Amino acid sequence: MKFKVSSELGYYFNSPGTLILNIHALKSPHQQILGESFFVDPWFYFEELISVGADNRFVRVNVTEPSPVKLRYQATVENSFDVINCADLYEVQVRDMDALVLSYLNPSRYCQSDKLYRLANNMFGYIDNAFEKVLALTEWIHNNVEYLSGSTNSQTSAYDTVTEQAGVCRDFAHLGIALCRALTIPARYFTGYSYKLSPPDFHACFEAYLGGRWVIFDPTKLAPLNGLVKIATGRDAADTAIASIFGDVRFDSISVNCEFAGTGFEPHFYTDSSSQALSYL
Amino acid sequence: MKFKVSSELGYYFNSPGTLILNIHALKSPHQQILGESFFVDPWFYFEELISVGADNRFVRVNVTEPSPVKLRYQATVENSFDVINCADLYEVQVRDMDALVLSYLNPSRYCQSDKLYRLANNMFGYIDNAFEKVLALTEWIHNNVEYLSGSTNSQTSAYDTVTEQAGVCRDFAHLGIALCRALTIPARYFTGYSYKLSPPDFHACFEAYLGGRWVIFDPTKLAPLNGLVKIATGRDAADTAIASIFGDVRFDSISVNCEFAGTGFEPHFYTDSSSQALSYL
Amino acid sequence: MKFKVSSELGYYFNSPGTLILNIHALKSPHQQILGESFFVDPWFYFEELISVGADNRFVRVNVTEPSPVKLRYQATVENSFDVINCADLYEVQVRDMDALVLSYLNPSRYCQSDKLYRLANNMFGYIDNAFEKVLALTEWIHNNVEYLSGSTNSQTSAYDTVTEQAGVCRDFAHLGIALCRALTIPARYFTGYSYKLSPPDFHACFEAYLGGRWVIFDPTKLAPLNGLVKIATGRDAADTAIASIFGDVRFDSISVNCEFAGTGFEPHFYTDSSSQALSYL
Amino acid sequence: MKFKVSSELGYYFNSPGTLILNIHALKSPHQQILGESFFVDPWFYFEELISVGADNRFVRVNVTEPSPVKLRYQATVENSFDVINCADLYEVQVRDMDALVLSYLNPSRYCQSDKLYRLANNMFGYIDNAFEKVLALTEWIHNNVEYLSGSTNSQTSAYDTVTEQAGVCRDFAHLGIALCRALTIPARYFTGYSYKLSPPDFHACFEAYLGGRWVIFDPTKLAPLNGLVKIATGRDAADTAIASIFGDVRFDSISVNCEFAGTGFEPHFYTDSSSQALSYL
Repeated sequence: MKFKVSSELGYYFNSPGTLILNIHALKSPHQQILGESFFVDPWFYFEELISVGADNRFVRVNVTEPSPVKLRYQATVENSFDVINCADLYEVQVRDMDALVLSYLNPSRYCQSDKLYRLANNMFGYIDNAFEKVLALTEWIHNNVEYLSGSTNSQTSAYDTVTEQAGVCRDFAHLGIALCRALTIPARYFTGYSYKLSPPDFHACFEAYLGGRWVIFDPTKLAPLNGLVKIATGRDAADTAIASIFGDVRFDSISVNCEFAGTGFEPHFYTDSSSQALSYL
Repeated sequence: MKFKVSSELGYYFNSPGTLILNIHALKSPHQQILGESFFVDPWFYFEELISVGADNRFVRVNVTEPSPVKLRYQATVENSFDVINCADLYEVQVRDMDALVLSYLNPSRYCQSDKLYRLANNMFGYIDNAFEKVLALTEWIHNNVEYLSGSTNSQTSAYDTVTEQAGVCRDFAHLGIALCRALTIPARYFTGYSYKLSPPDFHACFEAYLGGRWVIFDPTKLAPLNGLVKIATGRDAADTAIASIFGDVRFDSISVNCEFAGTGFEPHFYTDSSSQALSYL
Repeated sequence: MKFKVSSELGYYFNSPGTLILNIHALKSPHQQILGESFFVDPWFYFEELISVGADNRFVRVNVTEPSPVKLRYQATVENSFDVINCADLYEVQVRDMDALVLSYLNPSRYCQSDKLYRLANNMFGYIDNAFEKVLALTEWIHNNVEYLSGSTNSQTSAYDTVTEQAGVCRDFAHLGIALCRALTIPARYFTGYSYKLSPPDFHACFEAYLGGRWVIFDPTKLAPLNGLVKIATGRDAADTAIASIFGDVRFDSISVNCEFAGTGFEPHFYTDSSSQALSYL
Repeated sequence: MKFKVSSELGYYFNSPGTLILNIHALKSPHQQILGESFFVDPWFYFEELISVGADNRFVRVNVTEPSPVKLRYQATVENSFDVINCADLYEVQVRDMDALVLSYLNPSRYCQSDKLYRLANNMFGYIDNAFEKVLALTEWIHNNVEYLSGSTNSQTSAYDTVTEQAGVCRDFAHLGIALCRALTIPARYFTGYSYKLSPPDFHACFEAYLGGRWVIFDPTKLAPLNGLVKIATGRDAADTAIASIFGDVRFDSISVNCEFAGTGFEPHFYTDSSSQALSYL
């Protein structure tokens, strides 16, 4: 699949400061960057950093004087996903996980799975099949959490959302991750560009580790699962913030775009009777 | 410095299950394992896993049938620390941190630094010198948080402790880390064997990133800073749990020991006028 | 119904202090005290206070010197309840509630109904009949919250319990109240002596305002609904604490007893198809 | 002192519903209503309710069909306060409080004093004089909590504010109350019209029970203490909400005004060396 993605972020630096962005498409054997550009306007020194473990691409911009700053990224990306028979998405046992996968069982800032054991098991523990279990919790989130812009903030966590039942894509993903981990299923946060997301924005969903694969789930159902360009994976939004700001900086504007550079796109969503799932790794 | 450390943990498995321990002394250029042994009694298959990024040594034990299980670790360790002039412990700028160090600025499960910005800056922001800043917050924790066994549990976080002001070494460390990160100072959790800790137990304290070094701090002041054998570092206790248990398992017993295998040990603690600090890396 | 109730509480006062107890059976037209005694051993001055609004009977004991103190209460109580056809337990409209009833719609310390609106409405909003709605949420609590002594403390609230799903009678009652209020059904906390409660202790459950009556519900199902002697009602446990302690005081012992002073007691519990409900006022 | 106060609230009812307002000036021996008017436009049936214990005046409006609704209140009020020598504001002992005063020691929805004992005592416990203690905590709030419109919402509580250190008048008052109660000083929430408050709005501050009097404190310092017209007192904002809405209702507009109907108003604020305090009861 070929996609053209772009984003533009605008800030006003009242003082010198540092900006760390995580908006570059991930490079991996499954996602090739055919071409990309990144501009800082006006120009300030920037450099790319690669996160340990997940290979996320951060760009750090050192703004040395008060100034408005625009950051423009665009890329053409060729990526692929695997389509997997759900029958193969068995529950991986803790004894068979490697160290990196095990770390995605740990509770994290926004995914306090340690507080959700009884709830998750009361609600979904009776489901034998691991894929169906994650599908069921994703459906439950979709049906019970109201998508409500502005209802949450950067401190909102899965522990809040499971009760308050309102939020945005980030909150939906955090809750899905926390429920998976509470059921001893490793899960991680996924940020990306998303085709046909309306209104256009960065998107967040999650991956669960099933059958030895990272399988994609999106409790918002706001965009087709086969229209994603991965930016980053991490334990939760703390690892993969679109922008981390250090200094006296005002956020001004954002625009995000994702186009399919091909023909015949067939949107894919899971249904109750899905027999196939998608994995981006 | 040469130390003999040992620990013994006892569990009762009511069903088959998996145990992941993080009680092995870290191997690093600064900490050599002169000899060590690990026994599972009765024997069950186990294997060592190394965490990504921090090189922590986990042992995973697969208990295949209901049974009591004893786990015995002992090691003779030769380690060293650097003594650094506090004058050299300047505040590292975000623009100069590498990707791994930057990740220790993120909020984590037990260290919600994102909720403590105003508090940390109101309390300690006026202190210019970075080392003095961390020393001051460590002193504040020591003076205001009551060390009270049993007052907290595995869900207690820095956000609780900053207000409720009671806890154990784990809670003291989490609060120190959260305050550092809220002040834009990277900080990480440190678990270890600790000489002269009374009563003997595993110990937890924290490291702050100052002057390009990971400098040790212990708000409990319960053990000399120069008597530590590092087991693990991580974002917080979620990364470095002594034991993670999967299955129907009852905890039975624990004993921990740390002996100085030398002569002339001079306990080192920081004071208000400390001019030298210790770094174990 | 005639009951003999008694309780004995033991404390050790390390310093002079004040103790406020709420263990006296409520006096009301529906609950007559045929006889009662209260002893403070050794004797210290005490007096009875009546709460505003709910007429709860507090006893305040002024302990003027360090001492062990035993407090013994016993009473013979004749009370009654009404049996009401569920068909008459319609939902009272806000426009028809008096000021005191309205106050039981407000969120309180342990019953943060304001955080549970969406959850309560998602779970129980579809049920038309008000009595069935409260019965359903009571059943849900019974089926999903694990009764686990020691799992919670005096700071645990409904907001915790709805997610963590473990607690004692107090926590069950708080959650029931919070869910009712979130559904615009006034609800209040009820403490009492309880016949056949095992092990014997003070009991807590709740009353919901339906059809213009305060109807009793007990999500623990640990004791028959027709075996209760009311001590107090309030917004939650903050209003009706068994004991409030001021000073340096150690809790030593408690014993509670409740006997039926008649014959032919037929335990009453609600079932899914209950057509009759009980009201103690 | 004579004041003219007025307020106008606008809502849009998408469906029939009920509105409970608490905007009428309190009637008491110390506050006489020389004249007042209340209009519902268009007219819907309304009635006045008086709260139990505090005598707050609620107006309940039954909106029987979808409609915009304007509510206009205005009054001319003659009130007075006592000026008390701080030397007389001794700490009242628990053994000397009546039942109603005691209830203001209990934790409440937004004032979780039970979680702040150690913090309050660590920070202010060393101050002997009760008035100075409350003055000190009021100053601490003023100096450390940033007044920031929109930073909090109707669920924000003292437990949040003590750490997050931002909020509005409601949050400042809740924190003051919680700290007082944690220090065994009864405290209650106060809502009112406030002369010279900028921008004009309803105001919230708190009263502490000292020397047998309810003494006014305002951690925001946004308005003179002698320019208040009391609307209501309660445990916290849950008891004294300006408006409680039942139904599908959209908030549209608010305007509030408070004029001094006299001459020679001398603004009164406490200072560090205040020797006189104000009580509105």
